[in-house]
Amino acid sequence: MSEDLGEWDDSSAIVPEIEAEAVVVVREDCVISGLSEAKEVFGHFGSAADAAFDEGEFVPAESEILYVRGSARDILQAERLALNFMARMSGISTLTRECVLSAAAASHGRDIRIACTRKTTPGFRLYEKKAVFLGGGDPHRYNLSGAVLIKDNHLQLLGMEECLRRARKQASFTKKIEVEVESLEDMLRAAELGTDIIMFDNMSPLEISKGVEILQKRGLRNNVLLEASGGITPENLNSYVSTGVDVISLGALTRDARWIDMSLEMESRSADTNRG
Amino acid sequence: MSEDLGEWDDSSAIVPEIEAEAVVVVREDCVISGLSEAKEVFGHFGSAADAAFDEGEFVPAESEILYVRGSARDILQAERLALNFMARMSGISTLTRECVLSAAAASHGRDIRIACTRKTTPGFRLYEKKAVFLGGGDPHRYNLSGAVLIKDNHLQLLGMEECLRRARKQASFTKKIEVEVESLEDMLRAAELGTDIIMFDNMSPLEISKGVEILQKRGLRNNVLLEASGGITPENLNSYVSTGVDVISLGALTRDARWIDMSLEMESRSADTNRG
Amino acid sequence: MSEDLGEWDDSSAIVPEIEAEAVVVVREDCVISGLSEAKEVFGHFGSAADAAFDEGEFVPAESEILYVRGSARDILQAERLALNFMARMSGISTLTRECVLSAAAASHGRDIRIACTRKTTPGFRLYEKKAVFLGGGDPHRYNLSGAVLIKDNHLQLLGMEECLRRARKQASFTKKIEVEVESLEDMLRAAELGTDIIMFDNMSPLEISKGVEILQKRGLRNNVLLEASGGITPENLNSYVSTGVDVISLGALTRDARWIDMSLEMESRSADTNRG
Amino acid sequence: MSEDLGEWDDSSAIVPEIEAEAVVVVREDCVISGLSEAKEVFGHFGSAADAAFDEGEFVPAESEILYVRGSARDILQAERLALNFMARMSGISTLTRECVLSAAAASHGRDIRIACTRKTTPGFRLYEKKAVFLGGGDPHRYNLSGAVLIKDNHLQLLGMEECLRRARKQASFTKKIEVEVESLEDMLRAAELGTDIIMFDNMSPLEISKGVEILQKRGLRNNVLLEASGGITPENLNSYVSTGVDVISLGALTRDARWIDMSLEMESRSADTNRG
Amino acid sequence: MSEDLGEWDDSSAIVPEIEAEAVVVVREDCVISGLSEAKEVFGHFGSAADAAFDEGEFVPAESEILYVRGSARDILQAERLALNFMARMSGISTLTRECVLSAAAASHGRDIRIACTRKTTPGFRLYEKKAVFLGGGDPHRYNLSGAVLIKDNHLQLLGMEECLRRARKQASFTKKIEVEVESLEDMLRAAELGTDIIMFDNMSPLEISKGVEILQKRGLRNNVLLEASGGITPENLNSYVSTGVDVISLGALTRDARWIDMSLEMESRSADTNRG
Amino acid sequence: MSEDLGEWDDSSAIVPEIEAEAVVVVREDCVISGLSEAKEVFGHFGSAADAAFDEGEFVPAESEILYVRGSARDILQAERLALNFMARMSGISTLTRECVLSAAAASHGRDIRIACTRKTTPGFRLYEKKAVFLGGGDPHRYNLSGAVLIKDNHLQLLGMEECLRRARKQASFTKKIEVEVESLEDMLRAAELGTDIIMFDNMSPLEISKGVEILQKRGLRNNVLLEASGGITPENLNSYVSTGVDVISLGALTRDARWIDMSLEMESRSADTNRG
Repeated sequence: MSEDLGEWDDSSAIVPEIEAEAVVVVREDCVISGLSEAKEVFGHFGSAADAAFDEGEFVPAESEILYVRGSARDILQAERLALNFMARMSGISTLTRECVLSAAAASHGRDIRIACTRKTTPGFRLYEKKAVFLGGGDPHRYNLSGAVLIKDNHLQLLGMEECLRRARKQASFTKKIEVEVESLEDMLRAAELGTDIIMFDNMSPLEISKGVEILQKRGLRNNVLLEASGGITPENLNSYVSTGVDVISLGALTRDARWIDMSLEMESRSADTNRG
Repeated sequence: MSEDLGEWDDSSAIVPEIEAEAVVVVREDCVISGLSEAKEVFGHFGSAADAAFDEGEFVPAESEILYVRGSARDILQAERLALNFMARMSGISTLTRECVLSAAAASHGRDIRIACTRKTTPGFRLYEKKAVFLGGGDPHRYNLSGAVLIKDNHLQLLGMEECLRRARKQASFTKKIEVEVESLEDMLRAAELGTDIIMFDNMSPLEISKGVEILQKRGLRNNVLLEASGGITPENLNSYVSTGVDVISLGALTRDARWIDMSLEMESRSADTNRG
Repeated sequence: MSEDLGEWDDSSAIVPEIEAEAVVVVREDCVISGLSEAKEVFGHFGSAADAAFDEGEFVPAESEILYVRGSARDILQAERLALNFMARMSGISTLTRECVLSAAAASHGRDIRIACTRKTTPGFRLYEKKAVFLGGGDPHRYNLSGAVLIKDNHLQLLGMEECLRRARKQASFTKKIEVEVESLEDMLRAAELGTDIIMFDNMSPLEISKGVEILQKRGLRNNVLLEASGGITPENLNSYVSTGVDVISLGALTRDARWIDMSLEMESRSADTNRG
Repeated sequence: MSEDLGEWDDSSAIVPEIEAEAVVVVREDCVISGLSEAKEVFGHFGSAADAAFDEGEFVPAESEILYVRGSARDILQAERLALNFMARMSGISTLTRECVLSAAAASHGRDIRIACTRKTTPGFRLYEKKAVFLGGGDPHRYNLSGAVLIKDNHLQLLGMEECLRRARKQASFTKKIEVEVESLEDMLRAAELGTDIIMFDNMSPLEISKGVEILQKRGLRNNVLLEASGGITPENLNSYVSTGVDVISLGALTRDARWIDMSLEMESRSADTNRG
Repeated sequence: MSEDLGEWDDSSAIVPEIEAEAVVVVREDCVISGLSEAKEVFGHFGSAADAAFDEGEFVPAESEILYVRGSARDILQAERLALNFMARMSGISTLTRECVLSAAAASHGRDIRIACTRKTTPGFRLYEKKAVFLGGGDPHRYNLSGAVLIKDNHLQLLGMEECLRRARKQASFTKKIEVEVESLEDMLRAAELGTDIIMFDNMSPLEISKGVEILQKRGLRNNVLLEASGGITPENLNSYVSTGVDVISLGALTRDARWIDMSLEMESRSADTNRG
Repeated sequence: MSEDLGEWDDSSAIVPEIEAEAVVVVREDCVISGLSEAKEVFGHFGSAADAAFDEGEFVPAESEILYVRGSARDILQAERLALNFMARMSGISTLTRECVLSAAAASHGRDIRIACTRKTTPGFRLYEKKAVFLGGGDPHRYNLSGAVLIKDNHLQLLGMEECLRRARKQASFTKKIEVEVESLEDMLRAAELGTDIIMFDNMSPLEISKGVEILQKRGLRNNVLLEASGGITPENLNSYVSTGVDVISLGALTRDARWIDMSLEMESRSADTNRG
């Protein structure tokens, strides 16, 4: 909380401690999130904020999204930090929602999930994952404790059989086991060994489609969840939708989301009557 | 540090505690930063890392940038967090460097600074500002304690004379006073009142050019630093360079920077001889 | 770390800062754990400790398990805290091992897991779970983030169908879904709805056996993990083993474990030659 | 507080944010404690709890001890942690009360104190000591700062005269000095040197009785407090009561206390009218 | 907050939890500060306090400055810490005010600032600087991030030209650059090189006066702020005022300030009627 | 540690990362303390320091007390904080030593202790108490947990008999009980009721002398420790010594101690040969 304030804030000190109102306005269409974080920021600095929308709701450009009351000084001190939370999180929620809707349209009624990855800003992961969730995505794999993830580096060190043997022995029975594969041979072996989830890692839509077909032929498709990941962007997303996987993961959701443009406008008390 | 690990990491638990080596490779040209943060992350998890480049150095695609030694388990636990630091920070340093070089070329030898803003990811500001600095930018205004910044909201509440009077009275003599202006009238008034820095806030290059000219005519140009900010992108940057300001601030440096693509490759001990 | 020391420790202040050695001896047979915690405690207070056994190893009574070197003052300040870690954790590991071995003997070769619960000492859970793991148990359900657990309170509020529908919609695809049931009707419904894990909550061995039989008859047994929990003690454990469930959970592992008796013995430097 | 929750709790996420009430019921007779901790836990998670008993009060089996109001989601998230505090602390208070009453009965009117030791769960000491206090025991020696405690390891290093000389010189005049003795010779010497408290460490009731007699004969009994410690259990407690010491310390109070059986029951709002 | 309380406060435990009122009275004339800190301390311990004066206001001896309401126990636990804050901070504010008034009288209408230094109690700097500010002083140079300060050790390592070149290149354009000089030659060079602030370090009033004269003659006086520091006390302050510098810094403001004598008086509820 | 550094230290950034040496010199006679704190500060910032004296040793003016090695940048960043620790703590140790020696001379061989009070800088108490201890004083009453202190506010609320009854019942048998008295009647009652320590609170030397005499006449003097406190300064100390009390407490030790004058001098590497 003190990151934006520093130890001695002369800029706000010049502002008198008069009561004021402010409103946050978004300048473009978006799926809003970060409202509860912004409210907490304003509260921490001594003012109070009410949201005009629910978290995860679609908001048209030029909407007023947050009403703030408190001393002018307190409001100005909290302004930048609160906006940073909402602008960054809403950008992620908006991009996620676009991907979710696009995939739903392309999947012809089949259930398909859009997920993010662990490629997140250090220290800010919780908020980025929450923004994905509010956008309709799957904030999966919050951290290394969430499930057992067997990656190429694990396979290379121990081989797939040994990895799965250890995973079953070491990990709790409550956790699913997921294997990242880079070839259809590995995919088949992982399915035959009964892994819960298979992730196609950096494989082309064509190859993935072939893989799904093979699993269906062998009667293994229904026992396993299939995830595509690596090199997927909002632009090429739909070519992965049509492969028949259950989940599509995009690092882009947290990495490439734009900030939503929004600003805080101070109002004089006398202007109150106009809004009421 | 525990954000990516969680309380109970079964994935790494399946990896034996054998000694291993790994190397981080960048997949595209970049200005590298975050190396010291990555080294600290690996150190925290019990392995050791050496960098092959200096912070802020240009690195061509496919270069090995970091050599890691330690138990395979420790390396894999630190991997994601270390990469997240470097990929995010290097993206910012690279974009900053591009802007710095582009502005330098367009300025015909006049000194001009590229700066970032306070639009940063909450909790990660220190690293984003450092990445700007390593890219050659000015990480100015770390927080509200750095200088006295009189913004439109202040002006609206108190008027410019009163703001400056308070700033001079309240703030330490060691701090510069900066005023954000949205019109040339305000600019002139701020310059006449002896403010240290004037920021043109969301004004067009044309208008800013006119403002600089006015100040020069009135003999006020040399007593004040001029900064352009608001709506500036790497694309339209050079039209602001030619206005004659001293500093150009882009929120885009920290908001729109891409992640640099990089990955960690595990090496078996026997492969060591090949690299030596 | 300061809990046992307080702000001003006059007792150790009377001890000169002479170099000393000490050894920790266990007074009864046990499965040892907490060695790495004890080493960290001694290290924190400025002395160094080496373990004579691996974590989770069986140790006969009167064995020396830890050798400590440092100033007499530092060793005495760390003593109580280090012993508290080892005595408490080893008690849990020992009780867990007894249950694991007893269940293995009674299960006639069928795989069966012994697990603990979330009934742990506040603030000390990580260590209690680790002690269960080192004793050979399943430290499952570290916290509410590990898996989706649908409890009687959830069922009562929403009904089973709605609970499962929400769980599938809200929770990540990487998580298993577990339902606690208190009747065979509920069990059957949960299995038919495709839940991953069913927990028999406070049901008698006889009833559980009947439940397993029903599932087998309906061909639902292989698609679900079965867990027995509630009212199970080391004494009545084996009557649950014979029901055919996959996992047996005992709150007793963390609640009722005894402390293992152990003590630290200071040695004068001159006695060194005897041990070398 | 986050220990039981983790970063992402899907289980409670399936519960709607409807208002609910819950009641905690104890399943066996006990001396209750941990009520204020439980109330703080519920408060931290956004609900409110009222206690039906005072801390340290005797509570018969099947009593309702705590009424909770809040959103169903908040209540369920706090449930386990709140119960863990109360079940563990009440177990200690109950065992302490049993020992206090038993010793009082056996002492024929002479004042005698029941105390715990420093053998406590790391990180949870404050709560265990408080539970002893609420049970009527003496939570003495909270940590090494409380009094000067001269132990066998100190005596072995420096001798008793030197230990006492240093203790008097180094320690504040506000602190009492206690010496642990393992023989009647040491006891006599400590008493003659004017120590404030003598602790009989791991000595039999017979030997301690002899010691008390010797001190009385020599007229030293009234100047010193006598404590018995080591190997004392609730079962053999009364044989120590009859030795004539002032204080009896049992590690068992914090080490061997059972958890009190209690559970939280959710109530639908419509059931409200029944209780009111 | 726990510094004064410790883990187990038996002294207050003897006080019943009855409602009480208390008043804090100052025993000597002073400029009061630390009121908001004291209110926070009382609040933290569960009572409530109202101030009868503003921060930084002059308060005559025997005034009641703070009214406290809460349980007698809570008030007594907070008493010492709250008084320590106010007594220490008010001492600094009072001394600062004395210096400010004395300098104003001696400066014949010329603006002159009284500032403190970085010689502050570790961990308590924020409060000491705030007390200086409330006394009317300049709390400048909160820490090393506030401005660029080039000290004798820097000059000795790199020379003045190189120091200023680096400072201009490395530091943000928003920061002023200050040079500490120990001779008039250095002063002149620093002024010619365009530094923002020059600090006369441990120089006599006579020499400083000469320095100011030289700068005026050369037409450099108006472009630079002048600060005197080192060896200045409230007693010799005015001889520095007459040198013509803009700022005078005294380590004495934070180092040598006396504690203001004040005490808390408990009132019985029945006495309430008298005060109302 | 970051208090003096801030987030972005441009001043040290201008210093190259060359190896350097520095020495800290005291400018006046003192009893030195804070050496270990200073060493920790330098270590935290990456350099290493060796002390030339022991903590609590008398050091003549112009002595070199600490040798520092490291990068020039690291040393300069740590300088101010390290000096603040040593200058403040040594000032307290020096004043304490003066009082201890003065009281010893005046007491004609009778043991007498000089103690400090709880009037300490918030957050810095541990260091102030340690400085008193190193000066030869009694750092008594570290906080409210150290002993049972019955103050005027307690007596007023409950009366002395009730206070002592509760103290005996509530407090651990390991703690001494001290009563603050403001009259000889109260003193006599406290002694007759068997309190461990009596503190004469703000009473004149004459009255205290009378009190000691009364206790001797009644044969109560040997069973109780006597402390004088309130209004005692280094100047009037000896008039309290002659009253016959055991302990004299001065808030002045921590409140009025001067800072010891000391400074850090940077040395170029080439100068090394001179010192060796």
